[in-house]
Amino acid sequence: MSRLDEVRAAFAAQGFMRNLGGELAALEPGRCEIACRFREDLTQHHGLFHAGVLTTLADNACGFAAMSLLPEGAEVLSVEFKMSFLRPGAGVAAIARGEVIKPGRTLSFCRAEVFMRDTAGAETLAAAMTATMMAAAPERR
Amino acid sequence: MSRLDEVRAAFAAQGFMRNLGGELAALEPGRCEIACRFREDLTQHHGLFHAGVLTTLADNACGFAAMSLLPEGAEVLSVEFKMSFLRPGAGVAAIARGEVIKPGRTLSFCRAEVFMRDTAGAETLAAAMTATMMAAAPERR
Amino acid sequence: MSRLDEVRAAFAAQGFMRNLGGELAALEPGRCEIACRFREDLTQHHGLFHAGVLTTLADNACGFAAMSLLPEGAEVLSVEFKMSFLRPGAGVAAIARGEVIKPGRTLSFCRAEVFMRDTAGAETLAAAMTATMMAAAPERR
Amino acid sequence: MSRLDEVRAAFAAQGFMRNLGGELAALEPGRCEIACRFREDLTQHHGLFHAGVLTTLADNACGFAAMSLLPEGAEVLSVEFKMSFLRPGAGVAAIARGEVIKPGRTLSFCRAEVFMRDTAGAETLAAAMTATMMAAAPERR
Repeated sequence: MSRLDEVRAAFAAQGFMRNLGGELAALEPGRCEIACRFREDLTQHHGLFHAGVLTTLADNACGFAAMSLLPEGAEVLSVEFKMSFLRPGAGVAAIARGEVIKPGRTLSFCRAEVFMRDTAGAETLAAAMTATMMAAAPERR
Repeated sequence: MSRLDEVRAAFAAQGFMRNLGGELAALEPGRCEIACRFREDLTQHHGLFHAGVLTTLADNACGFAAMSLLPEGAEVLSVEFKMSFLRPGAGVAAIARGEVIKPGRTLSFCRAEVFMRDTAGAETLAAAMTATMMAAAPERR
Repeated sequence: MSRLDEVRAAFAAQGFMRNLGGELAALEPGRCEIACRFREDLTQHHGLFHAGVLTTLADNACGFAAMSLLPEGAEVLSVEFKMSFLRPGAGVAAIARGEVIKPGRTLSFCRAEVFMRDTAGAETLAAAMTATMMAAAPERR
Repeated sequence: MSRLDEVRAAFAAQGFMRNLGGELAALEPGRCEIACRFREDLTQHHGLFHAGVLTTLADNACGFAAMSLLPEGAEVLSVEFKMSFLRPGAGVAAIARGEVIKPGRTLSFCRAEVFMRDTAGAETLAAAMTATMMAAAPERR
């Protein structure tokens, strides 16, 4: 299995991604894009995307971008991330685009932007993440 | 409706909280606790709680702690948060405890800790958040 | 006094900037660049730039970028920032470039990158900040 | 040289700490306190402590708290930190108290609080940091 296929398999194995309806929209070494359609069960109390949904997408976009650059078999863990909410999460879909800005053997520094897509397909930046990801030896389960 | 009842109503109105099965375990002025049982559809690819679930609980615990101290009718928005992942999200339930460390008319500084509960009821600290919340005039929907 | 002149005056009034030898290398609406030459009294214990120096430059680059977009007379306060250290602070000078990524009447979301300049003038990204800045009514001193 | 003496030696070797007049007020395994008197050359443009000074003290308090728990000879690097500014930096001295909340072989999660001391000796919380520190093999200089 190639490294990108390992990433795709990890994505497919996440119960929470299936719950959210997240789709792996693009994947290349050091970059990952994840899309998620709006649904009523993904909302905060004003009927917009919940901050936690946008954060989940951004965390995964960063984590899988980092994982794509690690050696085959290596896992990746979220050490920490910060998420800033620039505009309300109003749209028919959310798209998170993550990239590695400084890869490393142990730590990878990543960032992601989350866009709201409207019915015309136009995108607006809604949130931005910076994240530290850590490589870990493969876990046996 | 009292202020704490307004918070409870906002909690109940979140489609995403119902999705996760989050329960408002405790609420008092400046403090909020939210619990969530483990389920397969809340997992990352190793079968543990997804970081995004723990972050959602912590964000809400901070946000509702902040909302509880604001005047009646006032809404609260997440400006930004940082989440650090200290230990794996392995447990039968996750409990987020949020508190306001510096209330303000416009900005409230909050923090939350997320614990993993095991089958014996013992708790282990798994993640920690600091968050900035902003008061907003009530939205008409 | 024009708004950019107000920013220049605020920069010049910082005792700590004079201490560090910081220079306002560039300023335009929404962007600010600050440079600082290496000195022995700016070091951590391995003789490199101290993280606190790089953070001070980045904080100012973000704050003055935000201040440049606010109405005349308005002040700016740092609400919070996160700084990630990608590479060692080794160079003959540090250059912080800050920009506003989402201006607002109350809050401005900013980011800055800090580069190390070597003796040949080449630059390497050493650190990255995201910051939330808040507008405040002018203070009387 | 004991581990705590190694920390004291690292503190003493920081040119920037001498510049600021920082004093190692307390040190024990996993905890570190640093104090710094107010001076005009440590100010922002309203004559208060510059955010960068408070951040430098908090970064060091976290870093040396982490270093104190690592094996002899091991160095510590700041991976990232987030600093929130709760109240203005107005006081005759600043005191940063750092602690390790989750030690680790590679990464240590830390937090620090920075207090303002007034002329009567009373303390007010002004800022709070969370930080990730990384252990590194000793560097030869």
